[in-house]
Amino acid sequence: MTATDTTHRFDAAVALTPTGDGMYTGSTHAGYGNMVGPFGGVIAAALLGAIIQHPQRLGDPLSLTVHFAAPIADGGYTVEAKAVRTNRTTQHWYVTLVQDDEVAAFATAVTAVRRDTWQTLDAVFPDVPAADAIAPMPAIARVAWTGSYEMRFVDGLPGAPDTASESSESLLWMRDQPPRPLDFLALAALCDAFFPRIFVRRPKWVPIGTVALTTYFHADAAQLAVQGSAPVLGRARALNFRQGFFDQTAEVWSAAGDLLATTHQVVYYKE
Amino acid sequence: MTATDTTHRFDAAVALTPTGDGMYTGSTHAGYGNMVGPFGGVIAAALLGAIIQHPQRLGDPLSLTVHFAAPIADGGYTVEAKAVRTNRTTQHWYVTLVQDDEVAAFATAVTAVRRDTWQTLDAVFPDVPAADAIAPMPAIARVAWTGSYEMRFVDGLPGAPDTASESSESLLWMRDQPPRPLDFLALAALCDAFFPRIFVRRPKWVPIGTVALTTYFHADAAQLAVQGSAPVLGRARALNFRQGFFDQTAEVWSAAGDLLATTHQVVYYKE
Repeated sequence: MTATDTTHRFDAAVALTPTGDGMYTGSTHAGYGNMVGPFGGVIAAALLGAIIQHPQRLGDPLSLTVHFAAPIADGGYTVEAKAVRTNRTTQHWYVTLVQDDEVAAFATAVTAVRRDTWQTLDAVFPDVPAADAIAPMPAIARVAWTGSYEMRFVDGLPGAPDTASESSESLLWMRDQPPRPLDFLALAALCDAFFPRIFVRRPKWVPIGTVALTTYFHADAAQLAVQGSAPVLGRARALNFRQGFFDQTAEVWSAAGDLLATTHQVVYYKE
Repeated sequence: MTATDTTHRFDAAVALTPTGDGMYTGSTHAGYGNMVGPFGGVIAAALLGAIIQHPQRLGDPLSLTVHFAAPIADGGYTVEAKAVRTNRTTQHWYVTLVQDDEVAAFATAVTAVRRDTWQTLDAVFPDVPAADAIAPMPAIARVAWTGSYEMRFVDGLPGAPDTASESSESLLWMRDQPPRPLDFLALAALCDAFFPRIFVRRPKWVPIGTVALTTYFHADAAQLAVQGSAPVLGRARALNFRQGFFDQTAEVWSAAGDLLATTHQVVYYKE
């Protein structure tokens, strides 16, 4: 694709150029820089994008697991997406991201054809004020990607641990900044935009890094289209911090009370 | 390995014979049969076993994602485990299970060297009666693997939907049957032994199948050794049932209140 003045920075960041046979080239984007290297969410989205663009793709994303196997350097990379097994209504994928002839990240995914069945929602939409009743958090200057999201915290702002509740939970309204209609790629990236829970639980900055991330997409394309660029509600918490790793789990809701995605990750922390 | 009269059925079920270069042969086991093919938990454990036995393995299991890509037939299979990337303290894996020259299941995993750090537990151990205060559920005759687990339900027995609470949650004490000391492989299998939440939520039997499963191991080898063959407490629930798929999330606790594992899966259901 050709980036123009009207291309959203997210589309530029996840853009891949097909080079044939499930192979692509891509590049990191300054608007989604992290403390070191790129924000993992855009890498997750780029890997999912390699599947979505693949000519053999069946159905829409159902699950995505991303392994951040090594530090990713700012600059170019190649991606290869491969359909490992294709069934009648589900398809299983393996995708690798290579830099300097080594795999720096890889993903597995399921795409699936959805159809109407019995349905019910067990999770409960949280009782929160509307997004526009809360001021957005200012971006963190040295973490570029925080300027590419609007975050309105109801509770659980990082760096202000709630020692009274002893909880790592955050509740916040979130969307791309500048606003952009939600699609599977943007949702995949957003699922990695919850700050590491250790910074909510403990007022100390230590090196951290997501090791592996799994997202389940509950929304179909029609629900995402209805969502447009309105804020989504995120709820994230950790269950356990121990021996250099913690888990983190989150829900992403539409304002109308549709559960759009659930996401889980295991994160390294230094001390 | 050679199975003897004293070999536990689980060890027989996950036994792999190395054939060199990260390749193994294995076979399904009648004691862990499911409605069709093998119980997914033993497949997950066998795939993890291929990593644990691998001569290049660094550290202990931290995460495991298994894709049940196609039906697995009763009988033999080959497994290939490959270290995709090895770092100083973490290692990322890709493992495939092949039957009839096609990938029927595959997994990604992280093994890691654990070390002491600051730690805290956010999740709360449920208030439950002791295991021996509850009678075990009888095995389900046509589902062999249910005879290989002892399950003592505190709440959320499948087939008896709790329509009052409208919850898919189950709380139960679980262990291998016959009892066997817990290790990473047995814990990996146990994480798939929660009945599909749809059978807790709705009193109707429909075809279901786990599509993909992710487990995070919070326990280290020392904690597992202390656990021995005592029952663990499982808590499972679903968040959303929609368009032929639901998610399912669970915690596995020691009786002493250690969080041993958390696990998530996305499950297909027919109608």
